[in-house]
Amino acid sequence: MTDRGKEDLTALRRLLHRHAERGWEEFWTTAFVAASLERLGFSLRLGADAVEAASAMGRPDGKALARARERALSWGADRALIERLGDWTGLVALFDTGRPGPVTAFRFDLDAVETAECRQAGHRPFDEGFASLDETTAHACGHDGHMAVGLALAGRIAALAPDLTGRIKLLFQPAEEGVRGGRAMTEKGHLDDVDVLFGFHLAGQFASGAVGAGCSDFLCTTKVDVAFRGVAAHAGMAPNEGKNALLAAATAVLGLHAIAPHRDGASRVNVGVLRAGTGRNVVPDRAELLFETRGQTAAIDRYVYERALEVLDGAARSQGVSVETRLAGGAVDGTSHPDLVALVAEKARAVGFTDVSLEGRIGGSEDFSWMMRRVDERGGRACHFIVGADRTAGHHNGRFDFDESVLPRAVDLFEALLRDRAGRGDDLRR
Amino acid sequence: MTDRGKEDLTALRRLLHRHAERGWEEFWTTAFVAASLERLGFSLRLGADAVEAASAMGRPDGKALARARERALSWGADRALIERLGDWTGLVALFDTGRPGPVTAFRFDLDAVETAECRQAGHRPFDEGFASLDETTAHACGHDGHMAVGLALAGRIAALAPDLTGRIKLLFQPAEEGVRGGRAMTEKGHLDDVDVLFGFHLAGQFASGAVGAGCSDFLCTTKVDVAFRGVAAHAGMAPNEGKNALLAAATAVLGLHAIAPHRDGASRVNVGVLRAGTGRNVVPDRAELLFETRGQTAAIDRYVYERALEVLDGAARSQGVSVETRLAGGAVDGTSHPDLVALVAEKARAVGFTDVSLEGRIGGSEDFSWMMRRVDERGGRACHFIVGADRTAGHHNGRFDFDESVLPRAVDLFEALLRDRAGRGDDLRR
Amino acid sequence: MTDRGKEDLTALRRLLHRHAERGWEEFWTTAFVAASLERLGFSLRLGADAVEAASAMGRPDGKALARARERALSWGADRALIERLGDWTGLVALFDTGRPGPVTAFRFDLDAVETAECRQAGHRPFDEGFASLDETTAHACGHDGHMAVGLALAGRIAALAPDLTGRIKLLFQPAEEGVRGGRAMTEKGHLDDVDVLFGFHLAGQFASGAVGAGCSDFLCTTKVDVAFRGVAAHAGMAPNEGKNALLAAATAVLGLHAIAPHRDGASRVNVGVLRAGTGRNVVPDRAELLFETRGQTAAIDRYVYERALEVLDGAARSQGVSVETRLAGGAVDGTSHPDLVALVAEKARAVGFTDVSLEGRIGGSEDFSWMMRRVDERGGRACHFIVGADRTAGHHNGRFDFDESVLPRAVDLFEALLRDRAGRGDDLRR
Amino acid sequence: MTDRGKEDLTALRRLLHRHAERGWEEFWTTAFVAASLERLGFSLRLGADAVEAASAMGRPDGKALARARERALSWGADRALIERLGDWTGLVALFDTGRPGPVTAFRFDLDAVETAECRQAGHRPFDEGFASLDETTAHACGHDGHMAVGLALAGRIAALAPDLTGRIKLLFQPAEEGVRGGRAMTEKGHLDDVDVLFGFHLAGQFASGAVGAGCSDFLCTTKVDVAFRGVAAHAGMAPNEGKNALLAAATAVLGLHAIAPHRDGASRVNVGVLRAGTGRNVVPDRAELLFETRGQTAAIDRYVYERALEVLDGAARSQGVSVETRLAGGAVDGTSHPDLVALVAEKARAVGFTDVSLEGRIGGSEDFSWMMRRVDERGGRACHFIVGADRTAGHHNGRFDFDESVLPRAVDLFEALLRDRAGRGDDLRR
Repeated sequence: MTDRGKEDLTALRRLLHRHAERGWEEFWTTAFVAASLERLGFSLRLGADAVEAASAMGRPDGKALARARERALSWGADRALIERLGDWTGLVALFDTGRPGPVTAFRFDLDAVETAECRQAGHRPFDEGFASLDETTAHACGHDGHMAVGLALAGRIAALAPDLTGRIKLLFQPAEEGVRGGRAMTEKGHLDDVDVLFGFHLAGQFASGAVGAGCSDFLCTTKVDVAFRGVAAHAGMAPNEGKNALLAAATAVLGLHAIAPHRDGASRVNVGVLRAGTGRNVVPDRAELLFETRGQTAAIDRYVYERALEVLDGAARSQGVSVETRLAGGAVDGTSHPDLVALVAEKARAVGFTDVSLEGRIGGSEDFSWMMRRVDERGGRACHFIVGADRTAGHHNGRFDFDESVLPRAVDLFEALLRDRAGRGDDLRR
Repeated sequence: MTDRGKEDLTALRRLLHRHAERGWEEFWTTAFVAASLERLGFSLRLGADAVEAASAMGRPDGKALARARERALSWGADRALIERLGDWTGLVALFDTGRPGPVTAFRFDLDAVETAECRQAGHRPFDEGFASLDETTAHACGHDGHMAVGLALAGRIAALAPDLTGRIKLLFQPAEEGVRGGRAMTEKGHLDDVDVLFGFHLAGQFASGAVGAGCSDFLCTTKVDVAFRGVAAHAGMAPNEGKNALLAAATAVLGLHAIAPHRDGASRVNVGVLRAGTGRNVVPDRAELLFETRGQTAAIDRYVYERALEVLDGAARSQGVSVETRLAGGAVDGTSHPDLVALVAEKARAVGFTDVSLEGRIGGSEDFSWMMRRVDERGGRACHFIVGADRTAGHHNGRFDFDESVLPRAVDLFEALLRDRAGRGDDLRR
Repeated sequence: MTDRGKEDLTALRRLLHRHAERGWEEFWTTAFVAASLERLGFSLRLGADAVEAASAMGRPDGKALARARERALSWGADRALIERLGDWTGLVALFDTGRPGPVTAFRFDLDAVETAECRQAGHRPFDEGFASLDETTAHACGHDGHMAVGLALAGRIAALAPDLTGRIKLLFQPAEEGVRGGRAMTEKGHLDDVDVLFGFHLAGQFASGAVGAGCSDFLCTTKVDVAFRGVAAHAGMAPNEGKNALLAAATAVLGLHAIAPHRDGASRVNVGVLRAGTGRNVVPDRAELLFETRGQTAAIDRYVYERALEVLDGAARSQGVSVETRLAGGAVDGTSHPDLVALVAEKARAVGFTDVSLEGRIGGSEDFSWMMRRVDERGGRACHFIVGADRTAGHHNGRFDFDESVLPRAVDLFEALLRDRAGRGDDLRR
Repeated sequence: MTDRGKEDLTALRRLLHRHAERGWEEFWTTAFVAASLERLGFSLRLGADAVEAASAMGRPDGKALARARERALSWGADRALIERLGDWTGLVALFDTGRPGPVTAFRFDLDAVETAECRQAGHRPFDEGFASLDETTAHACGHDGHMAVGLALAGRIAALAPDLTGRIKLLFQPAEEGVRGGRAMTEKGHLDDVDVLFGFHLAGQFASGAVGAGCSDFLCTTKVDVAFRGVAAHAGMAPNEGKNALLAAATAVLGLHAIAPHRDGASRVNVGVLRAGTGRNVVPDRAELLFETRGQTAAIDRYVYERALEVLDGAARSQGVSVETRLAGGAVDGTSHPDLVALVAEKARAVGFTDVSLEGRIGGSEDFSWMMRRVDERGGRACHFIVGADRTAGHHNGRFDFDESVLPRAVDLFEALLRDRAGRGDDLRR
């Protein structure tokens, strides 16, 4: 890549970094990406055309969406695009070469993390003026870099068009944090015709120069929001008139953590947040809790989740209160296809990565897994890999930043994968 | 009373003491009482004619009943009477004077307590050879004395027959301990036509020579047996295959004790016994618990009981196990009629009791309350009183014994009440 | 009272209503009252001289105090007075007649309630422009009326000075809501020399024209804030490294509500608020809960409180977390002296109240009880009474307002009590 | 083996089967084995010389031991031997060849299971008259077969003596069920000088003719008995005077099951049995629970065990009751040495087993693991293997019986191992 190209890529990443938006609120970001891709000749499916509303999880309320749209406009987003988006973010961009060939897809993610970015000297985004405009939200996971790579790849696609075959899809997914958006994009059908799918993550446990060519350890997880509703009463004067939502919630917390482990492998349950009650002398009429289940396999996660529903139902009944649960996120398991893992490894070496391993532990959950599973079910192949990058702090930490110098080579790797899968000529394989 | 009469009364009480039988198992006792009353000209309603089966609570199983019947025979009970009793104990004896007049009723209780009687020197029943034949059961509450008084009263009724009017009923109730039998006798209808009802208890907080003329502090209570049934599984190999009855029971215990108090008065809940599980390394598939609720009023007891059912249901559902509850006993509240309280006090003084108070705290629950309530509902009047007696230990204690010298005067008091209510002549009042 | 006097009294109440301040933050109010009383010749003990810091409960943090002081200044409070107050509010005003005689004391309360005042047509404070300046705080309990009466009484004291004897104390207590300030004013010693103490409350269950002359049903209560501190950990990756503060809190909630009732009378416990955890996938390292105990007697409240500490300690240890408790409020029991109850009733009738009863149920807790107890211990007498007032909603409701027309007669009643107890001449009694 | 030899072996197994004794109560069995071995020239370490008292877990009380000794005598045990045993069972038998060489050890187990043996036609021990004499105890795990093999091996050792070298130890361990005795035999030092140790189990998942040559999946486990002690009180009259042991136990049950899983591998906790309380209307003053922990590694088991102690301590404190825990059993992890696994496989094939695999899943815990670990720590090698046998029901089931025809070949395998390790000549090992 030329020095100019590298500078542009860095600038692009920094622009995206500065406009950090939370999951499902990526209006500015979606509009920005959309405008860029439209210019390059991609045809777009935006917002409600990109995601299936019924499968969207962990959505903010209408007020938060309105605030986010307003802000996007105040940040200069194109009003027409914002209006097209309505209540939804995310986009799928299609480049049709007009020639027969496979459907090759690449997925990137749009959202930032709910964390305050460090605003002290020594944190480069702060020092160099591209820290997040929103004090409570930051690109502390690297999705800004992912998008920069994705947009650069789009430019390559446009430039290489005469040499490409088939159709090429770029998926810019909303709400990856909390694993909330991947399923919705999958359920919209965008993966149904995909022959080859690539996704990636920056950094993780890999340093600059390294690549982990195939992640296969996605943990299944389900995220659930719970609301108990009872009846308030004066705790001194009429305790018997209350229906105690907090007692139900406390009973549920103990019951959830006591769900038996599974013979077939590891499982987890965590009630991470509980908020209940309105005043010291009032029988609490409401309690909200946020919890998650995990399982080494989808079946184990499902077992824990179903047991959890029993526990919640029983706890509510025991206090005569109601309970509602809402799916707030979820990811399944998944394994990168070995052929593609080998391909990524080969191309990574080819473009100059010096430390290439076949295994790329993601060490957690990723809702790319929904897409992998769909592609796999339809007879295609998918692969998720890690592009190493030195980082200044752990992912999701307010001090997180990564070595931008890895971005150009990441673009080169994507181009190599593109050429291999969608190229006309010598590059064509298998 | 003549010295001979006093000796007979003492001997009668000791005979009954020696043949202590538990609630619903009073076969020997019922047969003995029945034979005595038949001889005196009473007509009898026995066993299933004395109690309403559907309202009987806390019944032993068939094996226990069979064992008890066998033992009654081995103790010399009349085989024909035992056969008439079948599976049921208790009796109602009617004496019809043939003259118009009120229905006057007296209630006594048949059963002994599940406690081991003291078998050491210094405990009179042991020293003088009339300790309970059953090592695990004892007349440690005074019901033997109650029955002795009742049988002596029957003799007086027969002797005074020409001077009496109306009909006189003697109710010998089974299973007072655990408040299990009172409701069944009431539901059979024996109280429906009663104009005046008397019941009494020996000792309590009153010394020999004292009488507490009217008890009004009966606590409402409900006794419940609970069985959780789940699915056993190897706790190490297949923990997820179990349905844990102990977890349900433990959740229920906490939930039961956390039932909110009532604005209108005192309430109680106690899980007195819990037994669960079969082996250390097996997910427990069964758990039994015995609990009770109490309330200052029937409404409060009902509130606690209904909340308890919710708690149990919720706890069971939370673990995917089943739960069954069985009413094992119950008593309601009740107040002695002030007119009768005054009458008891007057007659007590008249027959020589020296320390007579109007209030007679029973300090707990008594299923005489069911009978009081029914009489009251039908327009009659009822009274429960205490005849003081020095005692050697607390009620239900294996060392309990009482001062037998109070029995003759207790009989005199009952006779005085009888004459007042059912007499023809000068004694007739109001 | 003259019409002008009545208008002034109403205006005074409304001025105080408008400047509603929460407990321990009554800087504007204290300064306003102080300035008024100083003008009338009272000598003042302010802030830290009025309350014993070590006995103050439920104090806001330093930031909240600083904000409240700033606001008081912005509302026009006298800067010199605010500086004298420092971190503390409340005042005791002494009027020394210079003549021998008793110490007669009257107590009023300064603080408003943490509730949003109704801002819709039909709510008089909104309609007539005297709604609370602070949107989250309102005089929804009537303390504004209490203070207006107190200041009017101060004027009467000054006017009647030549006819009075002894010393007269006016106590303006901070932080009555949540029963947080009464003990601190008592522990400072201001009640130690008091011969006669009066306190009152507006409205309650009494309509305009009525007086409940002697409250005797103060419930003992203890308010406690609890903080559990554990160790956060990634719930999926390292669950064993966490110390789960939420599990401790949930265990505590169940344990607190399961504290056994007391043989000697009613008790209560309520966990009104629980907040725990920081994120769904993090083992919660902190949990805060707010609870209260109540008891029919001080001993019962103490029993529940001490059991609660055991429960909290055990719950914390069971999860290896720490727990800290902080007393956030408390009140004891207390009974109005019958002589003073009779006096209040007599004077109430004398000044024109038409419906006077001897009993004045406060139906809850009041930290006036600390003061009553101290006066009683030192051989004095105390009385708390209710001055009825029609109201538009329940106390503490954002729509609460009361019938201001009762205020003049309330002042008259106080004057009558003053004359009776501290008068020189014909009014002197006993 | 000759037909006669086979018949003897079967008869021996059946004799042992008939005299089934529980762990730590194997007086008849120990005496029988001891007499047999003494006759063959072994020198014996019996009872307290065979096991370290301080490390014995899950011991019965003195009464049970006395009863078991009495019964052993009634079954014809040698009185002198029973007296030598005192309160202890188990034995270590040493055969010294007098020639230099290794110490070769073999371990067998003495105890039967606490289960009722099937007494219906179709169950061979019943049909053929060798069912357990004790109706509540049965050799339902195969230890009778183990001992028969061990005694036959002893005969071979005596017969082959001239061809053997070094010293040969036979360990007959008490109380393997519940993993209670293995540690005590290890701590006595009997493994400290052992160069090669073999142990085996019959049946498991292997059919007749099969051998699983090396078990390596021993789960670490800890068995704990817990006793809570509180204060009883009348639940209606004086609930506040009780210290509720059942509430503590119920809290503990929930807390134990909620212990967080470990990042490093599987863990388990199970409260298998809970018994609490004495009567429905009494605050329970005692509660006993039996639980176990398991871990994929010793560190994980330790983690769960230590967390469990915290939970128990906290639960007890929360109710003001005391808690005592007693180690009732335990096993560690362990891996068969690969050289010995290969050897067992080779010899198994050599003696005619037709289905030999290298892996032999024991699928649970075995306190042979203590011995393996000690041998390994001292530089020796150990191996545990499975000799397949068709069976009629699962281990520990009252219908369990196994195919006795595998016993002769099992003896042959042991002889082959003996010759390989302790032989003088051609058999001498690598």
